Amino acid sequence: MYQHQTRIRVRYGETDQMGYLYYGNYAQYYEVGRVEAMRHLGISYKKLEEEDGILMPVVSMNMRFVRPAHYDELLLVRTSVKKLPSYFISFFVEIFNEKEELVNGGQVKLCFVDGKTKQTIVAPPALITSMQAYFETAE
Amino acid sequence: MYQHQTRIRVRYGETDQMGYLYYGNYAQYYEVGRVEAMRHLGISYKKLEEEDGILMPVVSMNMRFVRPAHYDELLLVRTSVKKLPSYFISFFVEIFNEKEELVNGGQVKLCFVDGKTKQTIVAPPALITSMQAYFETAE
Amino acid sequence: MYQHQTRIRVRYGETDQMGYLYYGNYAQYYEVGRVEAMRHLGISYKKLEEEDGILMPVVSMNMRFVRPAHYDELLLVRTSVKKLPSYFISFFVEIFNEKEELVNGGQVKLCFVDGKTKQTIVAPPALITSMQAYFETAE
Amino acid sequence: MYQHQTRIRVRYGETDQMGYLYYGNYAQYYEVGRVEAMRHLGISYKKLEEEDGILMPVVSMNMRFVRPAHYDELLLVRTSVKKLPSYFISFFVEIFNEKEELVNGGQVKLCFVDGKTKQTIVAPPALITSMQAYFETAE
Repeated sequence: MYQHQTRIRVRYGETDQMGYLYYGNYAQYYEVGRVEAMRHLGISYKKLEEEDGILMPVVSMNMRFVRPAHYDELLLVRTSVKKLPSYFISFFVEIFNEKEELVNGGQVKLCFVDGKTKQTIVAPPALITSMQAYFETAE
Repeated sequence: MYQHQTRIRVRYGETDQMGYLYYGNYAQYYEVGRVEAMRHLGISYKKLEEEDGILMPVVSMNMRFVRPAHYDELLLVRTSVKKLPSYFISFFVEIFNEKEELVNGGQVKLCFVDGKTKQTIVAPPALITSMQAYFETAE
Repeated sequence: MYQHQTRIRVRYGETDQMGYLYYGNYAQYYEVGRVEAMRHLGISYKKLEEEDGILMPVVSMNMRFVRPAHYDELLLVRTSVKKLPSYFISFFVEIFNEKEELVNGGQVKLCFVDGKTKQTIVAPPALITSMQAYFETAE
Repeated sequence: MYQHQTRIRVRYGETDQMGYLYYGNYAQYYEVGRVEAMRHLGISYKKLEEEDGILMPVVSMNMRFVRPAHYDELLLVRTSVKKLPSYFISFFVEIFNEKEELVNGGQVKLCFVDGKTKQTIVAPPALITSMQAYFETAE
């Protein structure tokens, strides 16, 4: 399993009048979590898209909202990949507040698309290679 | 079953550089869908919150992204309630593009919270009553 | 002068914990206002960008926040063009609440860019033509 | 003059289909800039609002968009206060890209409101005191 942690501070504009981080803004935190997880492996999503012409659209997403997050809290976003990607990659995300309480947990599944042909493709070799070391004990 | 339809046009600021409606913005469309579904029943979520002191935080959400939505498309958001609310209410959402193709489908589950005590409560009677007629044949 | 009005209802996710429409979300309302103003003239910004390859990036923006807008309010966005576009186009925007009180007023200036060369160009003739009738008495 | 710098990485969901940071999202960057500028002075905007009951709504804002910012760029947000606050406080903001080129520059003016009475008040003494040292040479 590959796991990475990053921190995001809740912005004022991301709260709603309930005084909570708006439920629709978690998806963006998930995005930051997975992009940073990939960056830590040496994979830049930006380069993947711009240089290799590979897009990674989201296929499905689910999340549970365990407790509210509030303005200015510095949240910990823990992103895990539990299976080597092939045609899909799933990121498991857990978000904790400063008291280390679980705020939100969920999963996002993405596929790989050739930007030119718009066809679904298998994960780029560089991404698979970068993750392989984390999965060897499991095999 | 109670079902309501509303339309939302994709704003430029809601797209991303892939040229699609950003996946994180669907949650806001779901919100508009359920608020309009409730309004059509004579229930104002604003009044529920401000006058009755009842909050409806989201408990869980899941969605599938079937095909991309694009800038300026006038999407149809179809919101369904398949079961009378008690401690929870689930909204099923399907979003269609102008060609009547399914773009996105999912489900959001919310609970009811007393704004003062922060305790979970049962759905407000007015909401249940407003929906009852749609469920009579099913009982 | 050319003037157009459109209505936008404040979404829950657009409020902040002050209970107001977040100040950063007005720019998106301005965008909707000018896109609808152009559509009413028969000019689709989407087509301008996709078919004619013309982009309209924002050059400058200013706004005054006169009084707060609240969740669920149906705001009136009045967009005015006071001068025929040449290398630039300026949209003047006023936003009113349901009591017809001014909520926000401002101005956005955009230029025209050839998507291929990335050079600044003059306003597309179709846009100028579509507006000309509104400015004849002024000349 | 008091000046503070903070960095913000452009999220995918903050870009638009032009491939740029959407113009409406700069206001949120400005917000992060001024909140971090205040935090560096020992002033938590969160505490100001929650413990002292002081709100700081935005009165006016203007910005120039000098060049586009792109996905994944790590922007530098430089926030300056050029005059001690009294009934208003103005934050001057400049945003630079990784090549140290100016991307955006602007100004936001906020006032101070007593959360209970909703009356405009003078800046809280703690805020003025925290800034005073930066303005002594200028007087």
